[in-house]
Amino acid sequence: MTVDVPVDLDTIRAAHARIREHVRRTPVLTSPQLDAAIRSALFFKCENLQEIGAFKARGACNAVLSLDDEEAARGVVTHSSGNHGAALAWAAARRRIPAWIVMPDNAAKVKQSAVTDLGAIVRYCEPTVAAREAMCAAVQTETGATLVHPYNDWRVIAGQGTAALELLEDEPGLDAIVTPVGGGGLLSGTAIAAKSMKPSISVFGAEPEGADDAYQSLRSGRIVPQTDPRTIADGLRSSLGEKTFAVISSSVDAIGTTSEAAIVRAMRLCWEKLRVVVEPSSAVPLAAMLEAKLPIAGMRVGVILSGGNVDLERLPWQH
Amino acid sequence: MTVDVPVDLDTIRAAHARIREHVRRTPVLTSPQLDAAIRSALFFKCENLQEIGAFKARGACNAVLSLDDEEAARGVVTHSSGNHGAALAWAAARRRIPAWIVMPDNAAKVKQSAVTDLGAIVRYCEPTVAAREAMCAAVQTETGATLVHPYNDWRVIAGQGTAALELLEDEPGLDAIVTPVGGGGLLSGTAIAAKSMKPSISVFGAEPEGADDAYQSLRSGRIVPQTDPRTIADGLRSSLGEKTFAVISSSVDAIGTTSEAAIVRAMRLCWEKLRVVVEPSSAVPLAAMLEAKLPIAGMRVGVILSGGNVDLERLPWQH
Repeated sequence: MTVDVPVDLDTIRAAHARIREHVRRTPVLTSPQLDAAIRSALFFKCENLQEIGAFKARGACNAVLSLDDEEAARGVVTHSSGNHGAALAWAAARRRIPAWIVMPDNAAKVKQSAVTDLGAIVRYCEPTVAAREAMCAAVQTETGATLVHPYNDWRVIAGQGTAALELLEDEPGLDAIVTPVGGGGLLSGTAIAAKSMKPSISVFGAEPEGADDAYQSLRSGRIVPQTDPRTIADGLRSSLGEKTFAVISSSVDAIGTTSEAAIVRAMRLCWEKLRVVVEPSSAVPLAAMLEAKLPIAGMRVGVILSGGNVDLERLPWQH
Repeated sequence: MTVDVPVDLDTIRAAHARIREHVRRTPVLTSPQLDAAIRSALFFKCENLQEIGAFKARGACNAVLSLDDEEAARGVVTHSSGNHGAALAWAAARRRIPAWIVMPDNAAKVKQSAVTDLGAIVRYCEPTVAAREAMCAAVQTETGATLVHPYNDWRVIAGQGTAALELLEDEPGLDAIVTPVGGGGLLSGTAIAAKSMKPSISVFGAEPEGADDAYQSLRSGRIVPQTDPRTIADGLRSSLGEKTFAVISSSVDAIGTTSEAAIVRAMRLCWEKLRVVVEPSSAVPLAAMLEAKLPIAGMRVGVILSGGNVDLERLPWQH
């Protein structure tokens, strides 16, 4: 299977022009103590400080603003009980168009209210892939809404690439960029943006050992679906799609995997040393570096902190 | 007693020029959800994102860089087991001069190592005001070091004023600025900077009901020392000094006081909605607004988040 990749630096710059009034230009933080721990110079792009608390605002906003008026009027639909669902609800609210979010009927109340508070309509389904795809298709048939997939969508991938665009504008001296990889939208957009802006740069993904489908997929040269993911990093349990696999297998230098203990340690270090609230998925790149799973010694490394939506009642380092 | 105030906007601009290579220009965050809760537009200046996690870096750095080479070579001394102690140790390390930090012999180990990790020397004393002042005097006699008081020092006040300078440069449309008030250094510097840059602006302080010496002092027209402070906001237990009282009593529009429950609620809201780690003292302005203790309805309000050094093992909303 050959996949034609229609996203390049121009596409990502166009996405940035489209969304820049809506998303935040997030700050880049540093910590001499973390640098000393890793023996590299780390530059953390704080996507957790987006209004909805995740980089997902970028891709969702680009997808929503890419629709023509007629398409837009019919609304958008997706399946996600996590950050993409909230991001699409938020983006649709900004354009004042309807959004339907399909989520399993066992989703936490807080995740349901996160999207209904933004004005979206929740549609419930059985907690299986087949059921959520069927429900999305039913909503599309019923309403004419456009499906905005969480990551296997070129408009979403282009939007996610705008974080790396800003990061390299702010820190042009970077030697490498690391992002977490779940479905691969952020990593794909980052790889296209970064390699186009600076061909010498390395782009790495990082994922939990307990959800290492991207690592397995790259090793075997085909998409290895994630079955039975076991990780605290709830944003990284998805499988790659054919679009993200095409980009990642051709452009990403390596995927580092990391233990659950390192993820918790890295998450706590971000809270303590950077003083920002990050969710476990965000801490996976730092965790992989703490475990020396990525060849970044002595480099200037950009790290995308992907999100900051956590339950403050239950922190993973507390017993 | 009349106190001549030698700090004005020029002094604060000079301080900014002196320290700007060393301290961070911290970002300003917003939250539509917090705006809706307060019915104002809030702009949070994130001093918790300074390298040492507090605005205290500004005043300490200005004081250290204001010394001539001969004075500097003899070092600096202060009494503080909190953010000012760490800030002075950090500033001295940047100028490669010695720093002595006097702290009570019952100070937590983590506070001791926070300053010794930065290369400062800790001197222990009994946990009384008299003992710490005596120990500071002894260090000065022994070493010739310059005392840098945590707040009752014009160089420190001028340095703290640089946060409001940046905030008003970034958000010139503000109608009011609120800061927490402990010893009053941040509030004094903020009042001088803000009222000079924009005479129509209101400047408010916020403090816990259980440590309301600034409120009492303004009401009675003289310094009412804080005895037996009872608050979780450990950065706000000090009394005003004669310098900070002089500035605050002449320039600050009002002091709002707030309950402990509102402080914890506001702290948690900052973590959840802004996704930054703030310490209880930082949350006091938002707490005072939540309890409608400040006349800011409908205004554009700058809020200085003063610091983010907390024990992540023990969060006040957990039982």
